[in-house]
Amino acid sequence: MQPAVEPATTTTTTGLTLRRVAIDTYHENVAYLHRDCEVVRAEGFQALSKVEVRANGQRILATLNVVDDSSIVGCNEIGVSEDAFARLDVAGGHPVSVSPAEPPESIPALFRKINGERLGRDDFRHIIRDIAELRYSKIELTAFVVACNRSELDREEVYFLTEAMVASGRRLDWHEPLVVDKHCIGGIPGNRTSMLVVPIVAAHGLVFPKTSSRAITSPAGTADTMEVLANVELPFEQLTGIVRQHHGCLAWGGAAMLSPADDVLISVERPLSIDSPGQMVASILSKKIAAGATHLVLDIPIGPTAKVRSMPEAQRLRRLFEYVAQRMHLSLDVVITDGRQPVGRGVGPVLEARDVMLVLENDPRAPDDLRQKSLRLAGRLIECSPDVRGGDGFSIARDILDSGRALAQMRAIVQAQGERGFDHHHPALGALTLEVKAPAAGVVIGIDNLQIAQIARLAGAPKVRGAGVDLCVKLGEPVAAGEVLYRVHASYPADLEFARQACARASGFSLGTAAQVPHVFVEF
Amino acid sequence: MQPAVEPATTTTTTGLTLRRVAIDTYHENVAYLHRDCEVVRAEGFQALSKVEVRANGQRILATLNVVDDSSIVGCNEIGVSEDAFARLDVAGGHPVSVSPAEPPESIPALFRKINGERLGRDDFRHIIRDIAELRYSKIELTAFVVACNRSELDREEVYFLTEAMVASGRRLDWHEPLVVDKHCIGGIPGNRTSMLVVPIVAAHGLVFPKTSSRAITSPAGTADTMEVLANVELPFEQLTGIVRQHHGCLAWGGAAMLSPADDVLISVERPLSIDSPGQMVASILSKKIAAGATHLVLDIPIGPTAKVRSMPEAQRLRRLFEYVAQRMHLSLDVVITDGRQPVGRGVGPVLEARDVMLVLENDPRAPDDLRQKSLRLAGRLIECSPDVRGGDGFSIARDILDSGRALAQMRAIVQAQGERGFDHHHPALGALTLEVKAPAAGVVIGIDNLQIAQIARLAGAPKVRGAGVDLCVKLGEPVAAGEVLYRVHASYPADLEFARQACARASGFSLGTAAQVPHVFVEF
Repeated sequence: MQPAVEPATTTTTTGLTLRRVAIDTYHENVAYLHRDCEVVRAEGFQALSKVEVRANGQRILATLNVVDDSSIVGCNEIGVSEDAFARLDVAGGHPVSVSPAEPPESIPALFRKINGERLGRDDFRHIIRDIAELRYSKIELTAFVVACNRSELDREEVYFLTEAMVASGRRLDWHEPLVVDKHCIGGIPGNRTSMLVVPIVAAHGLVFPKTSSRAITSPAGTADTMEVLANVELPFEQLTGIVRQHHGCLAWGGAAMLSPADDVLISVERPLSIDSPGQMVASILSKKIAAGATHLVLDIPIGPTAKVRSMPEAQRLRRLFEYVAQRMHLSLDVVITDGRQPVGRGVGPVLEARDVMLVLENDPRAPDDLRQKSLRLAGRLIECSPDVRGGDGFSIARDILDSGRALAQMRAIVQAQGERGFDHHHPALGALTLEVKAPAAGVVIGIDNLQIAQIARLAGAPKVRGAGVDLCVKLGEPVAAGEVLYRVHASYPADLEFARQACARASGFSLGTAAQVPHVFVEF
Repeated sequence: MQPAVEPATTTTTTGLTLRRVAIDTYHENVAYLHRDCEVVRAEGFQALSKVEVRANGQRILATLNVVDDSSIVGCNEIGVSEDAFARLDVAGGHPVSVSPAEPPESIPALFRKINGERLGRDDFRHIIRDIAELRYSKIELTAFVVACNRSELDREEVYFLTEAMVASGRRLDWHEPLVVDKHCIGGIPGNRTSMLVVPIVAAHGLVFPKTSSRAITSPAGTADTMEVLANVELPFEQLTGIVRQHHGCLAWGGAAMLSPADDVLISVERPLSIDSPGQMVASILSKKIAAGATHLVLDIPIGPTAKVRSMPEAQRLRRLFEYVAQRMHLSLDVVITDGRQPVGRGVGPVLEARDVMLVLENDPRAPDDLRQKSLRLAGRLIECSPDVRGGDGFSIARDILDSGRALAQMRAIVQAQGERGFDHHHPALGALTLEVKAPAAGVVIGIDNLQIAQIARLAGAPKVRGAGVDLCVKLGEPVAAGEVLYRVHASYPADLEFARQACARASGFSLGTAAQVPHVFVEF
């Protein structure tokens, strides 16, 4: 039934000018209006209302904060946070109009997910597009993340989510039949295999455009560690040129707009420690597919303090990765690895860069676990070449490393990206140190990945490049009473003090007898 | 194993002074630090980090916003939002210290709920205490609300939640054996029975200290409507005195700190339209128990556009209310009522106050449905008296109303609270009007509660007291083509235009034949 009323004409409130409010609201568009502003009264706006701000053909949705201080925003102004200001792309003082916003188009689908329903392909596409365009408030974003976590997305929903995340951003095309990549699900400090796998595999001739994130909750990401050696923030054209010439690169992927919705989702997943299988698979695969990979080797470490703690759990996760990869036409090789302890000796950007360079130089002091793991991962990728027989990859990788070709390849990539002049024989470590010693003689029977990572972070890593933890002994090694277990490096007294407090609470090391050393979960 | 390190000393960062940043962050403590501030660099703070701010013995947790404008906050200052400033309770310029905050104590319990676990009594107590003390960020708050919504709290968890919410605030004690109250779960416009039930039951001599909320998503709450007649924001001592003298009051409960965690939870439930049974029961019962009620009559309306749409659903909700009430030693009488359409004629504070006064005066123009429903609810409460026989309540209530004693009681309460001089025979309605007319002859077979409420809100209610919708016909009544179905009142042209657009989308009225009028779900 249609009522007998006059047709509607749209009303908008104008007469306001734009003002940049330099507050970093971290992936949320916030608009600031003065409480006495005409539009607040007339529209019945209240704190946290959703408003639409329009200027010069651009329109954004923002969450409203009501302000009582006219030095922040006056009665004839609308302030917007830095993210929102950049999106509107007009100068301060520009006339803008504001109106009560209809909620983002995908909100009904969000409400259905909150109520536990299964969503379809279009639902995920709309939700992820709204998220990538910052149309969701932090409340709506959190509701989506928690609802997906709880109702355990089924595998087809994970595929829809992955596909939607790829579609939300840029997708690179290298115009190559074979583009390889590797990724680890994380959680193991010192696990810097990418910086060895890339030069080995690129030296073999495969195209390997590796883009990495910076550390989110860990003491160093690949981008942070590579940045010790070379520039990692490269314009896209330069990155393409380096890959063309040297087959590989080791760059930061943050500016490339690959799966941008992922970065927004992480802003709420991180404070809630949410890392559900569905969200992990969608996050990792969407980034790799958007980066143009055709073949991916995925490292799932397993151990008592790793993200994955049992073999059945690892196998479930592997099957989910494989299902989604197959639907997305990505060739995937999952390897389950030893995650009982940190890899290598150093934890923190400079310390990890040192370990990587020692392996590349075949230095006898190089950590053997980092070398072996990197060779095995590189071998798997080399076997993606149509001309390499299954089983031959490892020895090809070892020949490339032993012959110095991997080192030469790394030097070429470092020089192309912009060398930093890092001297790994005299690395610039944090000058303040703290030694944690064995309280009694024994054999190392446990090294807690989480606690070592936490200590390295408190010491300043990754922000302070030379900060971190340098392990002196590893699992299964005997120690005497008073022998140094590890050394903490920091640059600031407050950082060292925080690390000292954490060490005092729990050193992360357990000592016992040789028989108590946990067996290796996997043979990889 | 304890490591061999020196005992820790706590470090704090001082040298900062406090500044009030007049931004209304709506139940979230926010701290503002300049990006170039020493402490941001030294502690590795990033946007949305949790920080602890201490001043003069007070300590609060706040979510960090990083600022790039030193006119908002300088490098030697820490800004805090209005909520946080009030909590610290010191003047601007006061020295403060800030440090990275440990997450609130209850976060591990929150994470367990996110992962679908059942929580115990202590878990709920810790979570709700942290929420009431504004220690949760909006992200953590949303995660709690969504996790509880999805995993469908079992009834014992709802009891634990209710108990924790009562414990989070003040609990009134009237030193009376019998303290009655009534509540409706909401969703029915015009349903202002409390303003009739209170004077009737108080005239009978029962103690009835009614505190109400303002409208959250509806066009008028009881507090908004009562405020047309009298002052509703009363100091606690005055409120007590009025109840002692007149047995009843009709006041706003917002300042009494009754179940304060509820108000914080509502700030995220509202934008997500979350109204799960468990959260509804805990919210309503915690407020009533904190207000000191010993006997409660609860109104659950049922109808096609009510909150509850089927009898089995109403019965499930009734059982949950009854279980929790019994565990909390509250005597509860649930009544399931006709929620097929708005109650009374007017929707909006002034219009609803007019309807209430017409009923109290036994005016022939008074809406009969409002009169009948109020008498039945009042009768149920009167039967709580030990000297009234079951079944006699209704006629006692009717005698009180018909005799004018209810009107006299209301006048006494209004005068005691502070009369506003409202003339209900010439109510000050919004001067701008819009009539919605029947497009054809027929019988009214449906009135959409949600759409009528939405139109009244867009017209300005409850903020604009005289705005709203005045219904001219109700369910089952015949209309001629062109006859007025309802009149919209507004005070501002923009409001009227928004209401007009909503009416054009859907008038909320359905016409048909007498046989199509939906039957009454209940006989109450």
